[in-house]
Amino acid sequence: MKAWVKSRPAPGAELAEVPDPVPAPDEVLLKVRRVAICGTDLHIYKWDRWAQEKIHPPLIFGHEFVGEVVGMGAQVRGHKLGDLVAVETHVACGHCRLCRRNLGHVCENMKIVGIDRPGAYAERVAIPAVNAWPVPHGMPLEQAAALEPLGNAVHSVLAGEIAGCSVAVTGCGPIGLFAICVARACGAGPILATDVNDYRLELARSCGADRTVQVKRENWVDAAREMTAGEGVDVVCEMSGQPTVIVESLKALRNAGRLSLLGLSSQDLTFDFSQLLIFKGITIQGILGRRMFETWHQMTSLLESGRLDISKTITHVMPLADLEDAMRTLAAQQAGKIVLVPWGETTGGPAAKRSSEREPAGTRA
Amino acid sequence: MKAWVKSRPAPGAELAEVPDPVPAPDEVLLKVRRVAICGTDLHIYKWDRWAQEKIHPPLIFGHEFVGEVVGMGAQVRGHKLGDLVAVETHVACGHCRLCRRNLGHVCENMKIVGIDRPGAYAERVAIPAVNAWPVPHGMPLEQAAALEPLGNAVHSVLAGEIAGCSVAVTGCGPIGLFAICVARACGAGPILATDVNDYRLELARSCGADRTVQVKRENWVDAAREMTAGEGVDVVCEMSGQPTVIVESLKALRNAGRLSLLGLSSQDLTFDFSQLLIFKGITIQGILGRRMFETWHQMTSLLESGRLDISKTITHVMPLADLEDAMRTLAAQQAGKIVLVPWGETTGGPAAKRSSEREPAGTRA
Amino acid sequence: MKAWVKSRPAPGAELAEVPDPVPAPDEVLLKVRRVAICGTDLHIYKWDRWAQEKIHPPLIFGHEFVGEVVGMGAQVRGHKLGDLVAVETHVACGHCRLCRRNLGHVCENMKIVGIDRPGAYAERVAIPAVNAWPVPHGMPLEQAAALEPLGNAVHSVLAGEIAGCSVAVTGCGPIGLFAICVARACGAGPILATDVNDYRLELARSCGADRTVQVKRENWVDAAREMTAGEGVDVVCEMSGQPTVIVESLKALRNAGRLSLLGLSSQDLTFDFSQLLIFKGITIQGILGRRMFETWHQMTSLLESGRLDISKTITHVMPLADLEDAMRTLAAQQAGKIVLVPWGETTGGPAAKRSSEREPAGTRA
Amino acid sequence: MKAWVKSRPAPGAELAEVPDPVPAPDEVLLKVRRVAICGTDLHIYKWDRWAQEKIHPPLIFGHEFVGEVVGMGAQVRGHKLGDLVAVETHVACGHCRLCRRNLGHVCENMKIVGIDRPGAYAERVAIPAVNAWPVPHGMPLEQAAALEPLGNAVHSVLAGEIAGCSVAVTGCGPIGLFAICVARACGAGPILATDVNDYRLELARSCGADRTVQVKRENWVDAAREMTAGEGVDVVCEMSGQPTVIVESLKALRNAGRLSLLGLSSQDLTFDFSQLLIFKGITIQGILGRRMFETWHQMTSLLESGRLDISKTITHVMPLADLEDAMRTLAAQQAGKIVLVPWGETTGGPAAKRSSEREPAGTRA
Repeated sequence: MKAWVKSRPAPGAELAEVPDPVPAPDEVLLKVRRVAICGTDLHIYKWDRWAQEKIHPPLIFGHEFVGEVVGMGAQVRGHKLGDLVAVETHVACGHCRLCRRNLGHVCENMKIVGIDRPGAYAERVAIPAVNAWPVPHGMPLEQAAALEPLGNAVHSVLAGEIAGCSVAVTGCGPIGLFAICVARACGAGPILATDVNDYRLELARSCGADRTVQVKRENWVDAAREMTAGEGVDVVCEMSGQPTVIVESLKALRNAGRLSLLGLSSQDLTFDFSQLLIFKGITIQGILGRRMFETWHQMTSLLESGRLDISKTITHVMPLADLEDAMRTLAAQQAGKIVLVPWGETTGGPAAKRSSEREPAGTRA
Repeated sequence: MKAWVKSRPAPGAELAEVPDPVPAPDEVLLKVRRVAICGTDLHIYKWDRWAQEKIHPPLIFGHEFVGEVVGMGAQVRGHKLGDLVAVETHVACGHCRLCRRNLGHVCENMKIVGIDRPGAYAERVAIPAVNAWPVPHGMPLEQAAALEPLGNAVHSVLAGEIAGCSVAVTGCGPIGLFAICVARACGAGPILATDVNDYRLELARSCGADRTVQVKRENWVDAAREMTAGEGVDVVCEMSGQPTVIVESLKALRNAGRLSLLGLSSQDLTFDFSQLLIFKGITIQGILGRRMFETWHQMTSLLESGRLDISKTITHVMPLADLEDAMRTLAAQQAGKIVLVPWGETTGGPAAKRSSEREPAGTRA
Repeated sequence: MKAWVKSRPAPGAELAEVPDPVPAPDEVLLKVRRVAICGTDLHIYKWDRWAQEKIHPPLIFGHEFVGEVVGMGAQVRGHKLGDLVAVETHVACGHCRLCRRNLGHVCENMKIVGIDRPGAYAERVAIPAVNAWPVPHGMPLEQAAALEPLGNAVHSVLAGEIAGCSVAVTGCGPIGLFAICVARACGAGPILATDVNDYRLELARSCGADRTVQVKRENWVDAAREMTAGEGVDVVCEMSGQPTVIVESLKALRNAGRLSLLGLSSQDLTFDFSQLLIFKGITIQGILGRRMFETWHQMTSLLESGRLDISKTITHVMPLADLEDAMRTLAAQQAGKIVLVPWGETTGGPAAKRSSEREPAGTRA
Repeated sequence: MKAWVKSRPAPGAELAEVPDPVPAPDEVLLKVRRVAICGTDLHIYKWDRWAQEKIHPPLIFGHEFVGEVVGMGAQVRGHKLGDLVAVETHVACGHCRLCRRNLGHVCENMKIVGIDRPGAYAERVAIPAVNAWPVPHGMPLEQAAALEPLGNAVHSVLAGEIAGCSVAVTGCGPIGLFAICVARACGAGPILATDVNDYRLELARSCGADRTVQVKRENWVDAAREMTAGEGVDVVCEMSGQPTVIVESLKALRNAGRLSLLGLSSQDLTFDFSQLLIFKGITIQGILGRRMFETWHQMTSLLESGRLDISKTITHVMPLADLEDAMRTLAAQQAGKIVLVPWGETTGGPAAKRSSEREPAGTRA
């Protein structure tokens, strides 16, 4: 089959012909229908320091995707051929003490699809059956490809009280945009969004932010206080990974507020924990992945009921064959989520998206 | 001042001239701006069995209202003349063991405005300052009069997980309608609403119910299962008070679901607790009043951010002078919430509502 | 192998020679080391109405046990030969919507060991590997056999706030006794225990109840109020299954208290839900089985740290060969938990228990 | 009356004759029966940098105390003359948005007894009636004087799940010792305690620590991992305020663990938040004061039921007249909690403590 392979410890990726994956007894084999680009994929493509430490070529990368079940191992129950599934890319071991406590999202033996095992910039991929989640009924494939990062946002926003809470989302990359959509759908407000990038702030407004702050032009902590009659916001969802923004977040929060941290950095965080954390009675949460599978259930329900609309976050649909172009587009920071269409799949506008979904197998290109 | 007084242990009420209330040191004196009718008020008016047991004439009744602070006792802090406030009608003692644990909503020494102490079918009323809650900025007075019963709905809906949950609201009187609005605003879905009354079901749809069931024509338990792929709903907010509906609610819930009971009855409930409650791992919550004052805060935030819209629930605005007409209208079950305008207040359309609000005192009629 | 088989739809059980179980690919084969008697087993033995509806002979029954891993299927990970394991007897399907939400304890496809599939009144039994839980280090085998019903008590007691809470445990059968032990270990107090049986109340005191009430001689609701300065208890763990006791429990609770129901009955429950549930703001929880596997983790930690001591609850150790005697002893209600020792296992006093545990395989009788 | 006054901006304190306090309408006047020394008091006494910034002489300091109600303002309800009360030293305003949400422990208008208003190193002190909490029945006065700092520990330990959790308490000053007592009473285990001071570690063991680590001789992170089969502890209660210990705490925690921070410092905290907080899915809580008044209720219940025993933490009882000696003793770090006996109060052994409590007023010295 065709696949984009990180074949050497160097920038770039190679389009190659590789053997088809064979599912283990507890795995399903998926035909990739749509695959999105994560910031992590760009790190791997560029071969930055993080990638050099974590990735062992050759590796098929790509991990945000929707696939169709085209094969399965003998032990698999609960799936059938033709099912459309999104994929939880964190493969938990299932038997460690954390997994047995339903804390699989922080399993110490975790393997990640597209990092530690073959990913989805390919025609087909095998994953554990338990990691396959049925796509919400009627969902366009382009959106279904983004369920994994949307789950990060759902996990962040719903990690504490949210209805009737004022919220700041710091950083309007795709997960920040998703967080705005989710917070709005779940009764949060007012919602303030911050970024350095005007393009992204425009997307933030279209996703439902009540107030946006371009942080080079305006002090967002002041804006957050002003928006809340001086009190500070109830919740910050921190998506930027910038240590300075984390410190600002603590300042922007009301006493006893919640700071949910998702954005990563290679830099340390330094702050006056006594004044900003203890005296304010604040709670900080490290958010990793998605609760397995409560988050997936919440996300599915929000989407199927129509409460949550993420259509504005998908800004580009391109052929997977043009991965290199797509990587350049993402690097230029003039994109929300970019979704890629594998070889042989039909691309089209919204109508085409809907008609291409769940059609009889024989009619698919 | 003028007031409607339940002057005798008999049906009806009497419009009378009574002495002005004098606020105690920790009380505020309110000029009533709008007052709504609660089902309880109709019980008092009709002088049914419940009223005969609970009410000791003479009593000024009426307890859902918005007022303007026109006086206050010497110990009052945090309020000023001219403030528009809604009223928590449950007067908790503040010093019993439950109050000291922030469980004032179930204070054992509770007194209720319009039941145990003078109410708001009057020009003015005195209440404890702690029970006065600032009206959300920009809110029409007619809606502000309904914050107390809206709080019942907010308390019910937010008494557990709600975002991404399927919900049934059984009974579409005003609190049921409010519950639909709140559930929808907070990410619940799909939302099923039940009633015997087509008028109310039409209101339910306009408030955001995804599915309505007229229970004389259709089995709502079946509808709830069908709506949830056979699983049952995550949450039922029971507003009818009918024992049979409570039993049906247990059947309509998925395993480990939540049943929040607000509707009251003089009848006993009989059910197979082993099969319907224990084997299903269900949680039943008795919901009384509003959390003081977390519920008020949540409600205010939902309204001020615009996430929650209750405009469709207010179906009638009438003069308080016509209380008897209003009672007949409510009794006919062809109304959502009925709001009354005291003597000397201007009635009008939406524009008037807004302009009449928070204007300088001298300009008011 | 030898096993007690419910061979016919009639009272009693038959000691028979049956084929050895063969574990499926995801199952472990266990040598039964100790097996306890549950009230359910007595129902099956006596062949009462419940048993007649639920049980399909022939069936090897018995489900509270500790075993040693002596074989396993090819897909099993996380277990090894020689491990001592207790068994979660509720076999959840693992792939239904409830299981995927970590609500496996109420899986709609649930099968129960010793009810729906072969049980443990036998020399060996095969169970899904995921249902095997490592026995806490150093635990006597007799106690390890009781972990499953102890888990019911842990689930009940820890289903809400418990530290610093006053508690009533209604019904002092083994699970009630366990609940007293667990509540005491977790900071609850004062703890009141009720029963009709003086023998059991004596056990309740030795397990840590601060106050016991023989309900034929004394009104326990009054006692509960007296114990809490008139306020009522924070929590009731209802283990009797008697509808009248459930109604009394609602009366004994303080406002906003918690009622956790575990005891089952074939009778309906009838009560004034408006007065006893809604006006009091009470929460009722149906408790089924054990959270998989949070409850098992909590239980293990409480036992390994020594905070929880259940030694007083095991009143009889008898040979499994004498099952009929044991059933008579249990029926006479003069027992706490009765533990049975399979053929070929050594019985002994506490010292023997400890030495027989985890000894090299060759030395076992 | 006699009082120790911080009369000048310099080290030390002056014993002076000052006017008697007069309670406001909503205040009670207390006769100080016992008063303990907080680390904060030592800062004030020594006049260190923190004190120079926060304290405005002249000030009567001292804030951990038990008093007898000897007077009250006209508005006070729920107290009577002769009541023994402990004191919540954080005076919340009661009407700000945080107070109205039951978050008075982080009220932005908070005033602190003995810091911002006159304290308890005096014969009498006036405090808001709402801040007076009845002493648990039968409690020795010396222990009752320590309820305020004990409340810090109760708040920390019960700020999340604790029953069946492994815990590390870092720093064995009085609040650390209290935390060990509370954790043990509430079912936590195993409990590891750390300090640099052997005297304190001996106290920690007598309070119920299962394992102690002298951090100059042994790596406590390794010890915590060893104690938990390599997994890491579920909870850390950080009482030392040392940034290095906070970083170690993150390392010692299992994934998805809880870090409750109470210890303060003037130093910043620097750490790799991506690796230690986000990838581990950890929650950090800033803990300030006590929940008003849930924490006081929990504490009272734990003490009255006998589950919690803090007797080992009170190591010194000295005359308040000897405050300077007491400060030196505390500074030498060879003390747990030091309790002081005001002028005219009888000191004695345990028997005397009990007999001196709640005796008729006329018999007191």
